[in-house]
Amino acid sequence: MTHKIAILGASGYTGAELVRLIATHPSMEIAALGANSKAGQSMAEVFPHLRHLDLPDMVTIEQIDFSAIDLCFCALPHKTSQEVINALPHDLKIVDLSADFRLRDPAEYEKWYGNPHAAVELQKEAVYGLTEFYRDEIAGARLVAGTGCNAATGQYILRPLISAGVIDLDEIVLDLKCAVSGAGRALKENLLHAELSEGYHAYAVGGTHRHLGEFDQEFSAIAGRPVHIQFTPHLIPANRGILATGYVRGEAQVIYDTLAAAYQGEPFITVLPMGEAPSTRHIRGSNFCHIGVVADRIPGRVIVIAALDNLTKGSSGQALQNANLMLAEQETAGLMLAPVFP
Amino acid sequence: MTHKIAILGASGYTGAELVRLIATHPSMEIAALGANSKAGQSMAEVFPHLRHLDLPDMVTIEQIDFSAIDLCFCALPHKTSQEVINALPHDLKIVDLSADFRLRDPAEYEKWYGNPHAAVELQKEAVYGLTEFYRDEIAGARLVAGTGCNAATGQYILRPLISAGVIDLDEIVLDLKCAVSGAGRALKENLLHAELSEGYHAYAVGGTHRHLGEFDQEFSAIAGRPVHIQFTPHLIPANRGILATGYVRGEAQVIYDTLAAAYQGEPFITVLPMGEAPSTRHIRGSNFCHIGVVADRIPGRVIVIAALDNLTKGSSGQALQNANLMLAEQETAGLMLAPVFP
Amino acid sequence: MTHKIAILGASGYTGAELVRLIATHPSMEIAALGANSKAGQSMAEVFPHLRHLDLPDMVTIEQIDFSAIDLCFCALPHKTSQEVINALPHDLKIVDLSADFRLRDPAEYEKWYGNPHAAVELQKEAVYGLTEFYRDEIAGARLVAGTGCNAATGQYILRPLISAGVIDLDEIVLDLKCAVSGAGRALKENLLHAELSEGYHAYAVGGTHRHLGEFDQEFSAIAGRPVHIQFTPHLIPANRGILATGYVRGEAQVIYDTLAAAYQGEPFITVLPMGEAPSTRHIRGSNFCHIGVVADRIPGRVIVIAALDNLTKGSSGQALQNANLMLAEQETAGLMLAPVFP
Amino acid sequence: MTHKIAILGASGYTGAELVRLIATHPSMEIAALGANSKAGQSMAEVFPHLRHLDLPDMVTIEQIDFSAIDLCFCALPHKTSQEVINALPHDLKIVDLSADFRLRDPAEYEKWYGNPHAAVELQKEAVYGLTEFYRDEIAGARLVAGTGCNAATGQYILRPLISAGVIDLDEIVLDLKCAVSGAGRALKENLLHAELSEGYHAYAVGGTHRHLGEFDQEFSAIAGRPVHIQFTPHLIPANRGILATGYVRGEAQVIYDTLAAAYQGEPFITVLPMGEAPSTRHIRGSNFCHIGVVADRIPGRVIVIAALDNLTKGSSGQALQNANLMLAEQETAGLMLAPVFP
Repeated sequence: MTHKIAILGASGYTGAELVRLIATHPSMEIAALGANSKAGQSMAEVFPHLRHLDLPDMVTIEQIDFSAIDLCFCALPHKTSQEVINALPHDLKIVDLSADFRLRDPAEYEKWYGNPHAAVELQKEAVYGLTEFYRDEIAGARLVAGTGCNAATGQYILRPLISAGVIDLDEIVLDLKCAVSGAGRALKENLLHAELSEGYHAYAVGGTHRHLGEFDQEFSAIAGRPVHIQFTPHLIPANRGILATGYVRGEAQVIYDTLAAAYQGEPFITVLPMGEAPSTRHIRGSNFCHIGVVADRIPGRVIVIAALDNLTKGSSGQALQNANLMLAEQETAGLMLAPVFP
Repeated sequence: MTHKIAILGASGYTGAELVRLIATHPSMEIAALGANSKAGQSMAEVFPHLRHLDLPDMVTIEQIDFSAIDLCFCALPHKTSQEVINALPHDLKIVDLSADFRLRDPAEYEKWYGNPHAAVELQKEAVYGLTEFYRDEIAGARLVAGTGCNAATGQYILRPLISAGVIDLDEIVLDLKCAVSGAGRALKENLLHAELSEGYHAYAVGGTHRHLGEFDQEFSAIAGRPVHIQFTPHLIPANRGILATGYVRGEAQVIYDTLAAAYQGEPFITVLPMGEAPSTRHIRGSNFCHIGVVADRIPGRVIVIAALDNLTKGSSGQALQNANLMLAEQETAGLMLAPVFP
Repeated sequence: MTHKIAILGASGYTGAELVRLIATHPSMEIAALGANSKAGQSMAEVFPHLRHLDLPDMVTIEQIDFSAIDLCFCALPHKTSQEVINALPHDLKIVDLSADFRLRDPAEYEKWYGNPHAAVELQKEAVYGLTEFYRDEIAGARLVAGTGCNAATGQYILRPLISAGVIDLDEIVLDLKCAVSGAGRALKENLLHAELSEGYHAYAVGGTHRHLGEFDQEFSAIAGRPVHIQFTPHLIPANRGILATGYVRGEAQVIYDTLAAAYQGEPFITVLPMGEAPSTRHIRGSNFCHIGVVADRIPGRVIVIAALDNLTKGSSGQALQNANLMLAEQETAGLMLAPVFP
Repeated sequence: MTHKIAILGASGYTGAELVRLIATHPSMEIAALGANSKAGQSMAEVFPHLRHLDLPDMVTIEQIDFSAIDLCFCALPHKTSQEVINALPHDLKIVDLSADFRLRDPAEYEKWYGNPHAAVELQKEAVYGLTEFYRDEIAGARLVAGTGCNAATGQYILRPLISAGVIDLDEIVLDLKCAVSGAGRALKENLLHAELSEGYHAYAVGGTHRHLGEFDQEFSAIAGRPVHIQFTPHLIPANRGILATGYVRGEAQVIYDTLAAAYQGEPFITVLPMGEAPSTRHIRGSNFCHIGVVADRIPGRVIVIAALDNLTKGSSGQALQNANLMLAEQETAGLMLAPVFP
């Protein structure tokens, strides 16, 4: 059976990445592509790299007949997303890639995003989309909120350690290096090739990055007490990739064993041999996440590092993985593409 | 039925690219990976981006039982390749990715490569592997010689025009821009990131690039008279991609129609609408080739441009496409992956 | 004696490059920085890399007292430039970096730029700023029109050959590869790092690039008859650099000798030994231009290649070189900085 | 008066950078270039970007008449350096850029570098070359040991804070991102453009990087007690730049004021306004170092970030600054070049 899929916000990078992945999916068919600003254009015009595919033209969201759609990916900007999803049929299966339904508490949402939430009821309904940790809830969900790409990377190294109580909860530093496609297709001076290609820098320093809302929510829930980490993202001159370097306190072997056990059998997450550090070049273009654990020379301190592709495992790949669960398909369908190297 | 595949030279970029592509092939199984210098190592050690795959360890070529192999890809350096292939069973189906069997004339081989050919009989047997133009011969061949990546790109724009007699054969200039993975994993100063990333330059200027041997052989054969083109390759700070800009004499619409007709129905080659120029970003990581035709402001002159990925359509993808034909599989099997952008 | 300098359009890349160069000039002082959109801001805010310099804040052009200015660089967008310069005192020495005064014929200007010229009298007065070929006129000029960066590169290889009558005027192909800073700080999708960094492509194919107006004007004037070349620019994933590959007809040694003689004694232009090709990595950040000559395998055909930095020798460095002449300073003052490599 | 300068190891990146800087120095003349592996070649052959300079050819070290040399820069590999310097006249002023004389304690040297020191007496004599903190000693020194580039960057943010006792000495994490030219011109697979340009990773994780020897030595000396920091370097796809992100405990305003006071009047080190983060793009190609201080959302935690160019302020620029002091020249001579952006 082939599922009819709609993608709203198909003219952005995560929309294009969804199309790239779904193109090889054995039981999904793209039935509608919504992009209000590009309505009437073909995908080949907006993304010439997808011109070999037989795809419907872009339409406005209003033009889509959602009764014929089995699942809708929503890759719209945050704030727009909550309004659009609120207006969609409330029995339509939706995977949202925006930030709008990641935070369960309306007050937290408003604190981090600066505006009151416009769909508080949906916020309650939404399931947080970090597949490996919400698998059952996602399989039964109607609305899944894709995680932040930085938030996913940090959680992959920290969640099992917090759950197992093997690290000091008050001494967590997360230094993250992300590639530029994570900033989307926005036209900003600091995203120009001439500015970025030979320069890199920290941003949202001091605990102001919105993905901290996700870390706070999730880590505190797991720990059963407030957990606040230090988190500094850096923008790196590369297209795809997130490398998260975590500084934690605990015993290296215990930490290693905890992570190894947590991801035992997971199709997309690999814990490298003890002492090895991952590289973004080895996961680019794929849904895989590599995790490394290294003991520091200072006893009781450990460095834990994760690498994933922000557009795939950090966003559109995660979304497809969740959609597979929601549609009772093989979880890995369309997602086993090998990384592209070099 | 699943075909047992061996890859010799599995520790180079084209070897790794073969593994990446074959990993999604529905009816191929990698049975042996030969790499003398890395024998005993796992693929995960040599190419960590392939660690999610269940692959045999690297072995020496001598350790491989070729009687259990249905088809062998040979991704060894040129000169080594002819010796190795000469020693393999002479009924084994082989796709060679080196330069060793591209030139049919031993004298031409020696002129361009500087040494006498060590397997002249095999040279006669080999079929030139430019799939779209040797499809039938390849389907019946035992030994197929993969083309040079630059040679493939140039031929995609020029062959149909020479065949149809619609351009001046004495006035062909091919200015080619290739990405660095085409130079392989060799350790050379000018391939270092620090040297290359902000610099670009022409090389093998003046008609000394070995792929000219292929152009001469093929174009002269088609034309039925000697054809010598001007060809200048440039090394560009990018990983994957070849952009070939051809300057030809003829009528733009005739040239466009000739190319459009030649590639009508081809699964991997697209002629863009008249006046559009292709970009390497739209074919990266895929087996697709985009071709553009633009009339110059000077009447009777036309610019014809092709873009493809040197590691895929220019090398390993081409090899797999040929292997599919040799094994009577669907020609496109394992090759419909969409380009990776951004 | 120190000359008081004003820079209009100081918030763009060429404005910043002027400041970088003038900062080491022994007898120039930046007295005013005009940038209407950033008026009130400090240079450190707009270009933090210049924060170590003691510079005036940005002001609107109207706020500048031009009676205290000895020479004004105008780095504004074309069309704006002609209006602004027309309103400046008509005895002020000006070096314009825009396209507005490059073409002497108002009809040619309108043909290439699409609007009637708003300062036809000034257009007549302006001297074309290709220093090595207009040195005397520039020294006596009040208004100098900086050349296009692509136009400069192409002329460096072709002017002496056309002057000397040693190449076929009807058989000139110029294939040019330029880095992205040549496109300025404009916010366009195809200038984003994510789009450009791993992709390259031809643009303005077929003879539509505006710098062709300069080639036509200059080459025809030298030859005493109409000369129209073929010219295809390509955008390359690098920040700085232009590499121009010229395909010409003539005798290689004659061409080499002609170029060597033409640039004998020139401080910034070097003709490499016969057979060597230049690289952009060897001129980056400097005012130098490297030229190479290679005979093609086809008798009577020659490849001539030039490399320069579009922001320096192609634009702001050229402008400073011209300003030095206009102010009777040492021509090389402030311009002998070595290239930055790696 | 013009000082006669020799550079040993002139064929590496730091050697070339020394030449680039000295070329604009008002009172230095390069009298000898030593490079045993390239002896007999001209600088234009080894580094074509320096071909406009009038430089002596490369010679072997044995061929240099050191009696005619006022100061010698030694840019040789570590271990070679100590042997060569030991054989030079013991009254020759030397700035060594290798690691050989950075550590004062022979045992520490052996611990980090794996071999006994071959010139222990010289080790005692050498002054550590972090200019801003050893200015007087350097002015009187005969042998100055240039610091590690990572070590310099980390010390710029941490030394004043440790001196002033305003941070917790047991809670220092330094996460560092360095560009590839810091790895030198060595031919290694992971320095190839194809491998590095779209990949980044941590290396020497867990406290094994040799620059930790310098941190330990210097910080412990300042504090009067052992200080061990956590330090993780990452390799970033850029040519030049180091960005050091320090996580410290203390009061943000106190930390800011301490750094601002420490660098008050320093010509090359700028503390940005409170809350601003530096970028490597703003110091590339220059001797400047930008420092930023940001309070974390967690009270008592502060992020301190420094950016500098590894080849300039981190190595050759530092060496020239020290040489200026040793020769009683203006400390900033030859070093006020503005950064190159974009």
